[in-house]
Amino acid sequence: MLIKDPLKIEVQRGGYRESLHLVHAVVTDSSGKVVEGWGDIEFLTFPRSAVKPLQAIPLILSGAEERFQMSTKELAMACSSHGAEPAHLRVVAPWLERIGCGVNDLECGSHWPSHDESAHDLSRAGNYPVPLHNNCSGKHTGFLTLAKQRQLDSKGYIHPDHPIQQEIRSILEYMMEIDLINAPMGIDGCSIPTWGIPLKAIAKGFARFATGGQLTKEHKAACEILRSAMVTEPFYVAGTDRHCTTVMKAFGGSVVCKTGAEGVFAAGIPELGLGIALKAQDGTKRAAEVALSHILHQLGAKPNDPDFSIEQPLYNRNQCNIGSVRPVE
Amino acid sequence: MLIKDPLKIEVQRGGYRESLHLVHAVVTDSSGKVVEGWGDIEFLTFPRSAVKPLQAIPLILSGAEERFQMSTKELAMACSSHGAEPAHLRVVAPWLERIGCGVNDLECGSHWPSHDESAHDLSRAGNYPVPLHNNCSGKHTGFLTLAKQRQLDSKGYIHPDHPIQQEIRSILEYMMEIDLINAPMGIDGCSIPTWGIPLKAIAKGFARFATGGQLTKEHKAACEILRSAMVTEPFYVAGTDRHCTTVMKAFGGSVVCKTGAEGVFAAGIPELGLGIALKAQDGTKRAAEVALSHILHQLGAKPNDPDFSIEQPLYNRNQCNIGSVRPVE
Repeated sequence: MLIKDPLKIEVQRGGYRESLHLVHAVVTDSSGKVVEGWGDIEFLTFPRSAVKPLQAIPLILSGAEERFQMSTKELAMACSSHGAEPAHLRVVAPWLERIGCGVNDLECGSHWPSHDESAHDLSRAGNYPVPLHNNCSGKHTGFLTLAKQRQLDSKGYIHPDHPIQQEIRSILEYMMEIDLINAPMGIDGCSIPTWGIPLKAIAKGFARFATGGQLTKEHKAACEILRSAMVTEPFYVAGTDRHCTTVMKAFGGSVVCKTGAEGVFAAGIPELGLGIALKAQDGTKRAAEVALSHILHQLGAKPNDPDFSIEQPLYNRNQCNIGSVRPVE
Repeated sequence: MLIKDPLKIEVQRGGYRESLHLVHAVVTDSSGKVVEGWGDIEFLTFPRSAVKPLQAIPLILSGAEERFQMSTKELAMACSSHGAEPAHLRVVAPWLERIGCGVNDLECGSHWPSHDESAHDLSRAGNYPVPLHNNCSGKHTGFLTLAKQRQLDSKGYIHPDHPIQQEIRSILEYMMEIDLINAPMGIDGCSIPTWGIPLKAIAKGFARFATGGQLTKEHKAACEILRSAMVTEPFYVAGTDRHCTTVMKAFGGSVVCKTGAEGVFAAGIPELGLGIALKAQDGTKRAAEVALSHILHQLGAKPNDPDFSIEQPLYNRNQCNIGSVRPVE
């Protein structure tokens, strides 16, 4: 396996390079065999929200999904970094209520909806954000659902030594075949632990998630339920004009993907039996997005949507196209 | 002159490196002599808003500043990328009116105030952004003021072939000793042309701006009026919690600086006779900001404010400090 140079993604303005991003990326099968690699395929990566689909697996394994009759949209939102658009809140809020919890049980903190229009609508109504608007509120409602199922006091569920986070760590370890006990640990935006993991292991985890390869029958079934929910309801994984949603819609279910803060993307292509993990070295979202589209194209994945473009146009304040973000060929 | 490797600015989470930025930077005197350099000191850079102070020079040279009795705050705002906080609007709006123009004469386009709280206050009042809220509205009001003084029809003043942009290009050429006729041209966020310029020339331009070195008496006096306005009213150059404002406040007038989109910073230190220009290769603001603070420290510039820190702390959604952006020593 020849590992290539890091992927180069450039921002061009007026046809000239304005900025340049380097992206480390790797494609593996579910055994962890490297199929393609660019840059440092062992790059120690905090996957952040990119592993939300894996963090949701215990919801299925524990029986919580069945007991609480979770809908497809709720399952998609357990794996989401959503924009807090009204449609997202209409799924998370009743789910939280149904499990007997309230907004104050969410320990993720608050921020304005990441979907700008929804943020301004909230202001216009004279309101302020609550933890429901946090992009991670679906995942956290998943944690609370798991705590109910395990009959645990949910208080402090964000801490690394709480049984919920220990169960979450275990599922990551199982899916990626990695020991996280001594891994570098940081605290994520929503206050739960995030571990530094070699990029290669994240790709393997996603290959397994997407294909069920190398997994027990139970794990395989759980992953299939979640993957199916994500590609069936891609809007509920992210939202309007968000790359996760755009890609899953464009590829009509043949690609499952999830982004994470600081330029991370993870994806799986069941038909090819592959997982992808990438990290923009500089942590930029735009580089990670274009790199994912580029790699999907390189692997021969075909979008159903003829308008799907690898390159992302850039506009100025008068809505004129003044450049783009694109791979350097 | 030994040119060092590009500056490395890292994002650490939990003490571990999460992301890494490379920054090209150069320090020159007003003759263009390189004093320090990191990375590609000729890096072709669209300076974007970093050259606003230079673009304001014709306001003084033309006599517009005198005729329209421009205040110190108005001069600072002619050089600004402001947050559209209420105090900013209270300066730009009456200035625009005084020169006999209205909001619709501004051709910069609209966007929500970059100062979040002001953006939400605007929504809460049931309003939407107009061109006054554009972070460049001070510079554009400067263009309109210059057009009045030159008795020009301001319509289309954003286009490269309009006399206003030709005068702006000429002053950049003079200040940086560079020919921009054949330079790469892009269109800026506010729709005016921005030229690709070697980083070294931007540093020279700022050394001249800050010190008056190598300039005619008239240019030297004009630069001194603008520099003095910027350091006297740093809030009006950017705003609350903005790096330009923070640095100029902290250094009590001994540093003049201006940022530009896509990771650009330019600065001048009159007492040392130096100009600084830097560009984060990946276009990130955080890298440019920390790199500027780091270089000021390396050059021995001393902040008056003991709380001024090179490192920038990072917080999660529960306001816990979870990492920082810092130079790699």
